[in-house]
Amino acid sequence: MAYLDHAATTPMLAEALDAYVAAAREVGNPSSLHAPGRAARRLVEESRERIAAVLGARPSEIVFTSGGTEADNLAVKGVFWARRAADPARTRVVASAVEHHAVLDAVDWLVAHEGAAVTWLPVDPSGLVEPAVLADALGDDVAVVSVQWANNEVGTVQPVPALAAAASVAGVPLHTDAVQAVGQIPVDFAASGAAALTLTGHKLGGPVGVGALLLGRDVAATPLLHGGGQERDVRSGTLDTAGIAAFAVAVECAVKVQQEYAARVSALRDGLVERVRAAVPDAVYNGPADPAGRLPGNAHFSFPGCEGDALLMLLDALGIACSTGSACSAGVAQPSHVLLALGADDGRARSSLRFSLGHTSTAADVDALLAALPGAVERARRAGALRGSGS
Amino acid sequence: MAYLDHAATTPMLAEALDAYVAAAREVGNPSSLHAPGRAARRLVEESRERIAAVLGARPSEIVFTSGGTEADNLAVKGVFWARRAADPARTRVVASAVEHHAVLDAVDWLVAHEGAAVTWLPVDPSGLVEPAVLADALGDDVAVVSVQWANNEVGTVQPVPALAAAASVAGVPLHTDAVQAVGQIPVDFAASGAAALTLTGHKLGGPVGVGALLLGRDVAATPLLHGGGQERDVRSGTLDTAGIAAFAVAVECAVKVQQEYAARVSALRDGLVERVRAAVPDAVYNGPADPAGRLPGNAHFSFPGCEGDALLMLLDALGIACSTGSACSAGVAQPSHVLLALGADDGRARSSLRFSLGHTSTAADVDALLAALPGAVERARRAGALRGSGS
Repeated sequence: MAYLDHAATTPMLAEALDAYVAAAREVGNPSSLHAPGRAARRLVEESRERIAAVLGARPSEIVFTSGGTEADNLAVKGVFWARRAADPARTRVVASAVEHHAVLDAVDWLVAHEGAAVTWLPVDPSGLVEPAVLADALGDDVAVVSVQWANNEVGTVQPVPALAAAASVAGVPLHTDAVQAVGQIPVDFAASGAAALTLTGHKLGGPVGVGALLLGRDVAATPLLHGGGQERDVRSGTLDTAGIAAFAVAVECAVKVQQEYAARVSALRDGLVERVRAAVPDAVYNGPADPAGRLPGNAHFSFPGCEGDALLMLLDALGIACSTGSACSAGVAQPSHVLLALGADDGRARSSLRFSLGHTSTAADVDALLAALPGAVERARRAGALRGSGS
Repeated sequence: MAYLDHAATTPMLAEALDAYVAAAREVGNPSSLHAPGRAARRLVEESRERIAAVLGARPSEIVFTSGGTEADNLAVKGVFWARRAADPARTRVVASAVEHHAVLDAVDWLVAHEGAAVTWLPVDPSGLVEPAVLADALGDDVAVVSVQWANNEVGTVQPVPALAAAASVAGVPLHTDAVQAVGQIPVDFAASGAAALTLTGHKLGGPVGVGALLLGRDVAATPLLHGGGQERDVRSGTLDTAGIAAFAVAVECAVKVQQEYAARVSALRDGLVERVRAAVPDAVYNGPADPAGRLPGNAHFSFPGCEGDALLMLLDALGIACSTGSACSAGVAQPSHVLLALGADDGRARSSLRFSLGHTSTAADVDALLAALPGAVERARRAGALRGSGS
């Protein structure tokens, strides 16, 4: 199996799993006062410090969550609620049109349930949010801004420091979903100027079910989960000592090797892109043309005349795991909101596939893809043509 | 170390950790369509079926969460929001006065933030909620009821089927926090008549960070976490395949051995209670006098003249891990709301300790406690008397 879906989830590092097992063999709730509780607390706090140290954050800025979705929801809803409570005029949310559903749907809920207004920021054809576009969208009625650090479908890297500076001028906290960025490209929370930043374990070699919101000390957020008052009273719930220890190991490993990782993986990716274009000359390469503005492991194509889902399943049958990069609910494939925001038409959006490389990727994975792809595209086209003539 | 704090967290079963490791070594997001994704999905769905089978639930009624706090918040806030949306007159929450903070603080937030009204149900001196008291509190303005299955501090087991029947007559969904009950006493979701039920992994030999809300198919709940639409669209977030597999193993193990476990552990507990009473004759045994109305591993005492925290630390120094069973925020010990609800005065509430036994408990643990306790109580009393005379 050639696994080309690292952006969906990437294998857990052996070091992270070892850390999980070592901690899971010990008993102790970090909120307990006795010796086993204090030992668990120590491991949690050491993990917090390790993560902070490699991400330009203070340990007290790290709020552990159950993952990226929870951190995104906490940032969007929690900061919205807190800002609106402090200033009832602040009822608008500003977010890019290419956010992950964890931000998108949280914003939609605020609109439907909490009477929020929303401004969706348009992007250029490569997926980029212009800082000037953000600046124009801001005002005294904005409670929170959310723009991802890097896009999960087409890999566009946003100019977060410039965006955060624009938000800062307007006095609005900026949240950035950096789930796809940490470990792939340099991420420094303090230097970015962001008020809040989401990361998660299973995108960088850590466990699923553990993530964090980096939250500036002066940024108020209303909790989503009330209870025991853990994590600065912003996120209650028993701290997952083993998961947190494993997460910290993975974050540290991923960030420490990021530079050589990015060099190796982007070279693999560049080869993949070149060979796909040669093998399928009419394939459309979506997202940034400049590799420097793109996640190192990301490649994203539309294959005219193919249904993305059909192509995915044909490749799967040939031992290639990849993704359409679009949400698929109840068997109904939706064209990707990201592709549509980039200006793609429905057909181009529906015919797209994402190949995402990661820490276990090798040249053999790329070879396997290229061995399978031309035939799969041809079959998907024939199936598409048949369906087209039948309808 | 004699670990007498299983109600805070209990050691992970070796079988559960093995299941975690086996799953964590495989890659695949259960939402992905390719072979590794489908394999992960299969493991999640098998785990769902295993849990459903031993808890009298249908697989489709299981909503995986990050633990008990999230499941409680989802039940209380989510069902409140959904019921109020369906009928704007339903703005009141009814809950017992002895709920865990995950319910208590979620309700308080609904009152402060969402304009909810609340009725706190009083309990009798053993901690019991009378079904007639609940019936009297209900009305057409109630959105949701929450009464725990068993209390985390004093171990009182509530008459859930009778309470759910009373709620059902009034057309109000009843949620029950069964975090302390599953694996300790028989729990059958369908037979209970509850609309929603919370359980969590780390109280029964599974991992921290994984739990579930059992949610009747016809019970609407507004999501707390929006995003990818996992779990019936009620709880988004990448499914934690390894954690869920480990959780299922632990639930199945715990429920299957529950009867012999309860017999063994309650015998140990009964011996502990008898010996503590003999060693400290003026100790007050809090909670139900009848062992049948109490969790098998729970023993809870007030030691007149002692500060609970001081006694806890003295015992800790002697190798005994136990709990005051009360929330302690920022170093300020609060008297337990549970003890106060039982009719205890401040002094009795502050002088209390919980000893909770579990699957690794042995007679040696009880012996160790009894060897340490009389001296520790004497020292805590002297410290208390000094503090009393100094203030």
